[in-house]
Amino acid sequence: MALKIGVIGTGMIGVDHIRRLTQVLSGAEITAVTDIDRARAEAAAPKGAQVFDTPKELIGSDAVEAVVICSWGPAHEEQLLDCIAAGKPVFCEKPLVTSEAAAKRVIEAEVAFGRRLVQVGFMRRFDADYRRLKAVIDGGSLGAPLMYHSTHRNASVPEGLYTSDMPLNDTLVHDADISRWLLDDEVAAVEVRVPRRSTRGGELRDPTIVLLHMTSGAIVDVEISVNIAYGYDIRGEVSCEMGVAALPNRPATVISDRFGIRQAIPEDWRERFIEAYDQEFREWIVAAGQGTATGPSTWDGYAATLVGDAALRAVASGTRESIEMIEKPALYGPAPALAAE
Amino acid sequence: MALKIGVIGTGMIGVDHIRRLTQVLSGAEITAVTDIDRARAEAAAPKGAQVFDTPKELIGSDAVEAVVICSWGPAHEEQLLDCIAAGKPVFCEKPLVTSEAAAKRVIEAEVAFGRRLVQVGFMRRFDADYRRLKAVIDGGSLGAPLMYHSTHRNASVPEGLYTSDMPLNDTLVHDADISRWLLDDEVAAVEVRVPRRSTRGGELRDPTIVLLHMTSGAIVDVEISVNIAYGYDIRGEVSCEMGVAALPNRPATVISDRFGIRQAIPEDWRERFIEAYDQEFREWIVAAGQGTATGPSTWDGYAATLVGDAALRAVASGTRESIEMIEKPALYGPAPALAAE
Amino acid sequence: MALKIGVIGTGMIGVDHIRRLTQVLSGAEITAVTDIDRARAEAAAPKGAQVFDTPKELIGSDAVEAVVICSWGPAHEEQLLDCIAAGKPVFCEKPLVTSEAAAKRVIEAEVAFGRRLVQVGFMRRFDADYRRLKAVIDGGSLGAPLMYHSTHRNASVPEGLYTSDMPLNDTLVHDADISRWLLDDEVAAVEVRVPRRSTRGGELRDPTIVLLHMTSGAIVDVEISVNIAYGYDIRGEVSCEMGVAALPNRPATVISDRFGIRQAIPEDWRERFIEAYDQEFREWIVAAGQGTATGPSTWDGYAATLVGDAALRAVASGTRESIEMIEKPALYGPAPALAAE
Amino acid sequence: MALKIGVIGTGMIGVDHIRRLTQVLSGAEITAVTDIDRARAEAAAPKGAQVFDTPKELIGSDAVEAVVICSWGPAHEEQLLDCIAAGKPVFCEKPLVTSEAAAKRVIEAEVAFGRRLVQVGFMRRFDADYRRLKAVIDGGSLGAPLMYHSTHRNASVPEGLYTSDMPLNDTLVHDADISRWLLDDEVAAVEVRVPRRSTRGGELRDPTIVLLHMTSGAIVDVEISVNIAYGYDIRGEVSCEMGVAALPNRPATVISDRFGIRQAIPEDWRERFIEAYDQEFREWIVAAGQGTATGPSTWDGYAATLVGDAALRAVASGTRESIEMIEKPALYGPAPALAAE
Repeated sequence: MALKIGVIGTGMIGVDHIRRLTQVLSGAEITAVTDIDRARAEAAAPKGAQVFDTPKELIGSDAVEAVVICSWGPAHEEQLLDCIAAGKPVFCEKPLVTSEAAAKRVIEAEVAFGRRLVQVGFMRRFDADYRRLKAVIDGGSLGAPLMYHSTHRNASVPEGLYTSDMPLNDTLVHDADISRWLLDDEVAAVEVRVPRRSTRGGELRDPTIVLLHMTSGAIVDVEISVNIAYGYDIRGEVSCEMGVAALPNRPATVISDRFGIRQAIPEDWRERFIEAYDQEFREWIVAAGQGTATGPSTWDGYAATLVGDAALRAVASGTRESIEMIEKPALYGPAPALAAE
Repeated sequence: MALKIGVIGTGMIGVDHIRRLTQVLSGAEITAVTDIDRARAEAAAPKGAQVFDTPKELIGSDAVEAVVICSWGPAHEEQLLDCIAAGKPVFCEKPLVTSEAAAKRVIEAEVAFGRRLVQVGFMRRFDADYRRLKAVIDGGSLGAPLMYHSTHRNASVPEGLYTSDMPLNDTLVHDADISRWLLDDEVAAVEVRVPRRSTRGGELRDPTIVLLHMTSGAIVDVEISVNIAYGYDIRGEVSCEMGVAALPNRPATVISDRFGIRQAIPEDWRERFIEAYDQEFREWIVAAGQGTATGPSTWDGYAATLVGDAALRAVASGTRESIEMIEKPALYGPAPALAAE
Repeated sequence: MALKIGVIGTGMIGVDHIRRLTQVLSGAEITAVTDIDRARAEAAAPKGAQVFDTPKELIGSDAVEAVVICSWGPAHEEQLLDCIAAGKPVFCEKPLVTSEAAAKRVIEAEVAFGRRLVQVGFMRRFDADYRRLKAVIDGGSLGAPLMYHSTHRNASVPEGLYTSDMPLNDTLVHDADISRWLLDDEVAAVEVRVPRRSTRGGELRDPTIVLLHMTSGAIVDVEISVNIAYGYDIRGEVSCEMGVAALPNRPATVISDRFGIRQAIPEDWRERFIEAYDQEFREWIVAAGQGTATGPSTWDGYAATLVGDAALRAVASGTRESIEMIEKPALYGPAPALAAE
Repeated sequence: MALKIGVIGTGMIGVDHIRRLTQVLSGAEITAVTDIDRARAEAAAPKGAQVFDTPKELIGSDAVEAVVICSWGPAHEEQLLDCIAAGKPVFCEKPLVTSEAAAKRVIEAEVAFGRRLVQVGFMRRFDADYRRLKAVIDGGSLGAPLMYHSTHRNASVPEGLYTSDMPLNDTLVHDADISRWLLDDEVAAVEVRVPRRSTRGGELRDPTIVLLHMTSGAIVDVEISVNIAYGYDIRGEVSCEMGVAALPNRPATVISDRFGIRQAIPEDWRERFIEAYDQEFREWIVAAGQGTATGPSTWDGYAATLVGDAALRAVASGTRESIEMIEKPALYGPAPALAAE
């Protein structure tokens, strides 16, 4: 039996997920949609799907077994709490919520419910390259991971819409989450350094270097460039005690021509992570069908929120900004070991 | 509505396709199975699928809209003809049939029916690396393709079961088909050269070099090693007038350790082509749902049969063995241009 | 006519340079050697070379047109000043001197002399990979360099002899010098961060992350691991406004075997930089033959000394340590532009 | 003491070797030059070098200890025989001679003299990439070599001057010699196949595929393209019983820009093999200084002549053309083992 899914928010990403759930993946059907713009919801609704006036009605409907949240961030908290109250599995696009306090409230509700219901849209964890990288680290043959160099390059960002805070509270979350996951660790403190500015972005603060001090003592240095023209280039290299493991080049055709021997680089995140999005939902459908969630959790969304907040404080202060997390509920697994010092 | 599929043959590959059609892909359900070993068919049948005594009954059943043939080669002709007679789309694992005459009879039946119904299991055409390679060639920026070097390496073959003819009438078909497809060309003649034998295979004739002379005049040299120990390594490089395009390394983690800077190589064809198999069926489901077929056709299966036959003649004669094809029915698209010479 | 060279210090590196100057390169002959251990000097002296009791006598001898200093660091200042007083070109192995004050005195003497006489042994500037990298940056097609990621990995260091300060005042100088050279810039401030310690080095502070804040505003992050077991792996990647340029893999044979598809990594600095050492002396012989020096200068040695000092202060303070340089004498070329901000 | 060298032929390659011997390498001086164009010889003569009217006088002069032959091919035999008669070591640019009979006469003379005096200019044997490749093969960890794929690509050839025979009797010699050397084997027979012609070369027969059947049974397939526009790209891959070893990419800067992630390809043979030429002469100077020769021998020049002749026969006949060699004189080392079959 296909999982009956209601989609909240039918903007670009919502429409893409509807396409994915109806045309690419098995085991799911879209039975309900809603959007603040009803016409947009109607246009996006697959045949047979009901269009609801409000998220609350959609969440409460018997036609909906699981929910996909693609609305804007400030609306997430209420929608997540409604899903939890209804005991319905929910996939929530990033950000989980927009404040630490809100994140804690969602954690509290989910812990009170007693079973994971929320999966957050950190799609990198479903990317085959990252998964192989983690398998190598976890395999242990290289020893403990000590440093991680995460490179995040965008060809360009929408002028005017993308502000100087966004490398830190929007772009960085992916590097922060994947660092926590790869190293099985938490972020204990954040530093931000601002190099010479690229002339391509006008007044935009770009590039940015972020240091994430992990609980284990490992240090992650993140290199963010959001206007680097040549492509969307995501790199990662883990330096361990006895060796190094890195993401490979993307599997593009090796062309030898007058530009050299070369491989194309993805143009944007859609091209780079399309399979990861598919896999993310493939696994969500299975878990949601069992009434629960796996993958990135409310706790991971909470951690990402804290890192973004700390990065904004750090760029302002110029110093190291610590992160204090609440005790990790057992629902979200064991906490990482502390640094031995 | 899901496509109702009947599967003929529930050996290893049949069972794998049943898994794929039920657990990985959307838009399909297995409604019927049959096997010469009824117990094996019953074990493989998903819940709700009917087990038939014979392929003929399965093909004729109203519960079956499309057929997947995974039986042994000699049984294919009759099953294909029954499918065509019933007007049902059919996916046929390689080989299409086991003789030139049989291939012609299937072509004749399909042409008489007037619409493509058969897709042959040449999965490489659905592999993302090969598709990108073809897109580069077709893009034309490198000029016309003149030579193609196709490398086919197996870690090992089942001792005793894999004979010296099989590099030519079994392994080679993949290289032959992908060469025809990449170059949009036909094989006009075949030569075989036998290098110094690997001591790893006992009396097995391995490795083998095959030259495919294409209708356009392009030459494909195929390097086949079936016992090379280190992995399943499939390579391809097209040399054009103004440049070269090649398959990339597989996207394995780049590890730096005491063995060097390195990437793992697939162990076997399952690991290498798993996504290609998925994509092959994804596209088949769509076409079959519309009552027809795309991808590798009966014509392609006929061509592969001719190449395998010519390769066996060529290894015996030591000389160039020509291939004479019947005129290409319009159903299968235009014939490639002849060499100017 | 071959350049008559006197060598001060016939330890491991001195003996290697004698070999290089007599057996590999043209245009030079060793006419004089000296060492604090006279027996060692005599053993190292090529046929026809005179063994002197003291550096002063060697430098003053008419048999010596140019000097190579391979003695220990604390002795360099006096020997350099003697060479300058004698107007003789001198190649000085790193470190130039061991204190900021000493570096200033050597600068003062050379400036008073009015012509460059000193070349410092920063061999990376002569490495073909680094030279090509610099040519790409200087070519300007990628825009201005904004960040440089310099990775310095040693397989192991001599236990007991290599202390926790040495990554900062010994190993780092190469990364600092090559950063200044690649970016055509000066180091304005230094920060040090210490990740989780590798268990392979006992109490050794390893690895280390160093941030070099350049005068232009560019930031260099240096990743130093001195005990990483797998090899001597030197990497560098310059991130510019419109693209990225990086050192390539070393040109080792591409082997496909059961360890994957792989290339060997150098075992140590001798293997990695042997051609750079040759080229360094090739160019020195030419310049010294003309009574002067090119390549890394006294100024570069002074800068390296300041970076090492600042790095030691920074690891102690945990904060950003600024570097104040004297005004750059015209003898050493133009100073880099200041950051616009 | 520097080796006193006389150079015969001061065309482009002769002038380049004079530069190399005087400015790059140690241990040699040019004491004599000659050319059929005396003015050209005088222009090329370094200071102090004597200009001779004829090769015979130069070879006979006491001012000459060793000879470098850069004249045109038809003149080589006489000059080589004169050098051998005078007992003087000689470096001879390819081709050794221009006929099988001439090659035999030079062999006979050298064998009668009793010591190797001749080194032939097959510079690839001195290239570091090829040497590392051979070391891997010789190391034996991959088992016996069974096939070698040699790719020889030129960006362009001089229109009108470069004829359709030249891929076979000029370009091929490098692939043939390096195959013999890498595999420690002889060429027993040659086949030539001519693919669809590149439109870039007009009537020029290009590309060409050559199969070299080695004495051991190994097969070398050589892919020659002389007008491929994009660069000078030399590749080689040895397929062994348990693995594969290949030449690496050249160590060019890895650039990521709008053309992809890429490395430049050499423009021509000078750029690709400049270090190999240096090393070739470095080793020749040492051997010639000892009154003998190492590296590619008269025997290797003889073998290359036979392969070129056989290739021309093979392209005309369309079939396999055998090579019959005289018994290998002990002076040139042991003959390779015959194929078991």
